[in-house]
Amino acid sequence: MAEYTTNAAGREVLTEINGEAAVPYKGVGKHRPEGNKAPRPIRTNADYPDSGDKRLPDLKTALKEAGLRDGMTISTHHHFRNGDLVANQIFDAAAELGVKDLRWFPSASFPCHAPLIEHLDSGVIHHIEGSMNGPLGDYASQGKMRGLGVLRSHGGRYQAIQDGEVHIDIAVIAAPTSDPFGNCNGVNGPSVCGGLGFALADSEYAEKVIVVTDNLVPFPCVPWQIQGNNVDYVVEMDKIGEPAKIVSGTTNITKSPDRLLIAELTAEFVRAAGILKEGFSFQAGAGGTALAFAIFLKEMMKESSIRARFVRGGSTRYLVEMLEEGLTDYILDGQTFDLDGVRSMRDNPRHIHTNPFVSYNYHNKGNIASMIDAVVLGATEVDVNFNANVVTHSDGRLLHGIGGWQNCLFSKCTILPIPSFRDRIPVIVDEVTTLCGPGELIDVIVTERGIAINPLRQDLIDATKGSGLPIKTIHELKAEVDRICGGPPAKPRFEDTPIAAIKWVDGTVIDVVKQLATP
Amino acid sequence: MAEYTTNAAGREVLTEINGEAAVPYKGVGKHRPEGNKAPRPIRTNADYPDSGDKRLPDLKTALKEAGLRDGMTISTHHHFRNGDLVANQIFDAAAELGVKDLRWFPSASFPCHAPLIEHLDSGVIHHIEGSMNGPLGDYASQGKMRGLGVLRSHGGRYQAIQDGEVHIDIAVIAAPTSDPFGNCNGVNGPSVCGGLGFALADSEYAEKVIVVTDNLVPFPCVPWQIQGNNVDYVVEMDKIGEPAKIVSGTTNITKSPDRLLIAELTAEFVRAAGILKEGFSFQAGAGGTALAFAIFLKEMMKESSIRARFVRGGSTRYLVEMLEEGLTDYILDGQTFDLDGVRSMRDNPRHIHTNPFVSYNYHNKGNIASMIDAVVLGATEVDVNFNANVVTHSDGRLLHGIGGWQNCLFSKCTILPIPSFRDRIPVIVDEVTTLCGPGELIDVIVTERGIAINPLRQDLIDATKGSGLPIKTIHELKAEVDRICGGPPAKPRFEDTPIAAIKWVDGTVIDVVKQLATP
Repeated sequence: MAEYTTNAAGREVLTEINGEAAVPYKGVGKHRPEGNKAPRPIRTNADYPDSGDKRLPDLKTALKEAGLRDGMTISTHHHFRNGDLVANQIFDAAAELGVKDLRWFPSASFPCHAPLIEHLDSGVIHHIEGSMNGPLGDYASQGKMRGLGVLRSHGGRYQAIQDGEVHIDIAVIAAPTSDPFGNCNGVNGPSVCGGLGFALADSEYAEKVIVVTDNLVPFPCVPWQIQGNNVDYVVEMDKIGEPAKIVSGTTNITKSPDRLLIAELTAEFVRAAGILKEGFSFQAGAGGTALAFAIFLKEMMKESSIRARFVRGGSTRYLVEMLEEGLTDYILDGQTFDLDGVRSMRDNPRHIHTNPFVSYNYHNKGNIASMIDAVVLGATEVDVNFNANVVTHSDGRLLHGIGGWQNCLFSKCTILPIPSFRDRIPVIVDEVTTLCGPGELIDVIVTERGIAINPLRQDLIDATKGSGLPIKTIHELKAEVDRICGGPPAKPRFEDTPIAAIKWVDGTVIDVVKQLATP
Repeated sequence: MAEYTTNAAGREVLTEINGEAAVPYKGVGKHRPEGNKAPRPIRTNADYPDSGDKRLPDLKTALKEAGLRDGMTISTHHHFRNGDLVANQIFDAAAELGVKDLRWFPSASFPCHAPLIEHLDSGVIHHIEGSMNGPLGDYASQGKMRGLGVLRSHGGRYQAIQDGEVHIDIAVIAAPTSDPFGNCNGVNGPSVCGGLGFALADSEYAEKVIVVTDNLVPFPCVPWQIQGNNVDYVVEMDKIGEPAKIVSGTTNITKSPDRLLIAELTAEFVRAAGILKEGFSFQAGAGGTALAFAIFLKEMMKESSIRARFVRGGSTRYLVEMLEEGLTDYILDGQTFDLDGVRSMRDNPRHIHTNPFVSYNYHNKGNIASMIDAVVLGATEVDVNFNANVVTHSDGRLLHGIGGWQNCLFSKCTILPIPSFRDRIPVIVDEVTTLCGPGELIDVIVTERGIAINPLRQDLIDATKGSGLPIKTIHELKAEVDRICGGPPAKPRFEDTPIAAIKWVDGTVIDVVKQLATP
């Protein structure tokens, strides 16, 4: 029987996750980690070929050499997003080898991984820890996965590996270009995906590391985004991914008049609040509204002759254009969302490849996220205390991962530009279905009906007073939306069974997702 | 009383060094490390400023904040070589703070550090672990240092830190450019030194990390050769080093006819042995003979239209010219020896900054050193079994560090181009004064009187048969040199007291240096 406790956010959370003790969320910055980073065995070059040639004939051989057996944890990265061709092959090979009860620990999963449901059903995969975008999340929501899903932010995933919460037995790193030693990158080759930063922790801490590539080059593969000195085996295969599919459905600018208004209001807010100034920085994701925001902001920058010191990607051609037009000194990029991003990362020394260690890891001596002047993020729901949800829909289904979302909340000004309702269901609610980010870190909500500033940010309230922007209280906004939609949304109905835990950036449990009630 | 045991090389070595148990050398690749890498405490961003600004007003304040106290280990890097202006200031500050018995753990020390003798005498510094080039080595040789010196290769230093043999309490990293977060590099600013790779292990494993810079730039400092996420404090000062002095006395091409002959013979040997072929690789240091070798080799490459895949630096303008003329795809550079090297590392994406983790660390999943086709190194002495010495002179004085020398021995063909005698003292001897590299890894000795190939390398003997090169046995060479010099050199006279231990690349003790006998 699952044991619960109430965490500092007032949420009922599990005290044990998949058989291991879990720490309840204690508040922002309140949990003090103890002890040392995860142990890493000392290796010796005597066990590796002097020639540097670590090639094995195929993935199955590599998995066998790596000692694949029941109950192990296998990790992958998601830089190919919905174009990944490797993860499914890993578990097909595991099935052929008769291995069971694996834990899959991807940095994220996508609809292209729906075939893994077969391996979840058959017992090859026990459960998934990582973002479950789409069908796998839906599968978990229906209570079909044996273990509990664990959702972490990109920084939280690094933290969990670093802190020893998750020990990876075998990391498989799909690499667009590699040398036989295992130095590899995502910017060259026929199947490019940009960076490989999400696989950094895996390469550093996994017991065994397999690099899989469809573009082998002679040593040295430069840049070595992943260092061959951390790699055990290299495998060549025909095709590792489809670059066209790193362009997720979200990387088109919105055409919706409401969303364009939201984007413009967001840019206006940034200007009115005094954030838009020489040497500032911002991060906007690859969603349609965020892209539109970046374009509005860019126009303002040009009008006022203001240059950014850096912008954070997910990069797209819009950020690349800013860099190439001299509107920013640098792009600090965690993942490329289109092929212009890949090209720029490859060719422009000011387009910097980053990883969750430098950007997002909270158990660190600081990171990039807290230094960003303004960050623009999405949300599925926000409550009247500015708490936000990014993983479940209002119908209760777990359909999204956290990505870098939680990590970005630490910026100097976190703005959620969101529609006030979707499909006639209000987005501003009394209480979010799933708590992913505490309201104290969320500063501004921008909707097509007005802007709500968190009362904790009196400085922003003061700065934008008299700006002419439609600033309202969150309660005013909510009342207005409820009127339009005919009242607050119906609460989703859940069974008692938990299906996933949501981790905070420090490894504590901020919330739990439950199985959907059978209709 | 010091306890000795005989190691696998037949050398009497200490079983304990500075109070800690020491493992005797067991043979190449024979020592199997056990356990895990050094523990690293989990940190939290909650303890670091959200703004990313880690500045403190001065070095003394930073040392105090870092908790400096008696008996601690303080590390520095030597990228400024004889132009370092920071190390002396650290111990001046420590003296002012009344701290005693520090262990100084530099990646190397130079004549510019002679003022530290005062702090060794007064008790501020207990002893030095690291290369002692010149006066500090001489000081140790005279038995004046309280603790035992420990000499390690660049790779061995990384290994010792990584494996937990040396715990650094405070690392001080002199950085030609840094941001307030501690991201830093050596390629920009008024006091450039090129790379900062020797400080990598320090930044990763030290308890506290202080970056000292004379060129502060707004975040982000790009490239971040050292990651600010590993840094605790940043200190600005007037001047951290003298770039003109990274050009050591050794970076001029030899004008000696004998040395030019040696260099030419070495290049001829590389060609005759079939090593010089499309896509090959080589490493030559910055000594006068090595530079001349590189120039002879370059001419051969041009004649035969042969391109290297990579050359390893220590970079100088000679390697940079090869890169710029398209004679090599890459320079993989561990330290820049002149300002052309710095410029190229800064501006040329094919001039790659490396560090001892990727290049030299033997407790790794392989490294670059073993993949190099030919490496050209110096030596103070070689014996008839091809064992070599690189730290003591034939008079027994400890005057040089190991550098990357031991690590480079793992190349596919290790060549020592050396004069057969110096100051009428034979360089080829019956037994080296100090054993630094086992003969089984040293393949070829090139002197002005002929070339000796290690009998273990029958392949090289076969390949160069009939080449017209003056190939002789090492015994023939020795006999010839002894005749010229009037017999073998007199053995240096030592006291019984050990003054330094020489570590092998795996942390075992390959030899011991003793105090010079009082004349």
